[in-house]
Amino acid sequence: MEPRAKVWLEQDGKLVLSDYRVQLLRLIEESGSLSDAAQAMGLSYRRAWGKVKEIEHNLGVKLLESAAGGPGGGGSRLTPEARRLVEQYDRFRKAAEADLEQDFRQTFGR
Amino acid sequence: MEPRAKVWLEQDGKLVLSDYRVQLLRLIEESGSLSDAAQAMGLSYRRAWGKVKEIEHNLGVKLLESAAGGPGGGGSRLTPEARRLVEQYDRFRKAAEADLEQDFRQTFGR
Repeated sequence: MEPRAKVWLEQDGKLVLSDYRVQLLRLIEESGSLSDAAQAMGLSYRRAWGKVKEIEHNLGVKLLESAAGGPGGGGSRLTPEARRLVEQYDRFRKAAEADLEQDFRQTFGR
Repeated sequence: MEPRAKVWLEQDGKLVLSDYRVQLLRLIEESGSLSDAAQAMGLSYRRAWGKVKEIEHNLGVKLLESAAGGPGGGGSRLTPEARRLVEQYDRFRKAAEADLEQDFRQTFGR
């Protein structure tokens, strides 16, 4: 057997960060474009934009800085706060995965 | 924010144990009856039975011992192997939860 896990973060009982959401933010940062990030995830621009707004609303944190031309037009990048969240989430994710493996070996003795 | 996780165990890429499946096994042991356990989980007897058979098939382990009268009729209880799996899963689950909290505090500093 092998352990598996899906992790996410909630605030006030609402899902705020998950692998999926963090992947969207990461792609925005890498591509410099919400439009390109949406496409890479098979999302409509509107849906990707709504997802970012939802995270911003739930966390009370501004995530995107948009250059002239508006979102998509002039390109988008993450705010320093958003980059920090992505970095923290990645570390959390990796630590949780490593600990899960260890917990499994310790309890099932494999 | 608060960390959340859903954990499960796979074998050969197949889901074999999860909170839901272990809860079914635990209820069978507590009630001594597959029928009562199914009812407590809002499952049909057929579906609960199928779930147990599926886990047995995937793990290659016999989980239920049935008294005279057949399953449901004469009552069911877990085999020693099944009781051990439930106990190990519970410990794994608790350790994973505690570590998740710790990983979250360490990475997000809260």
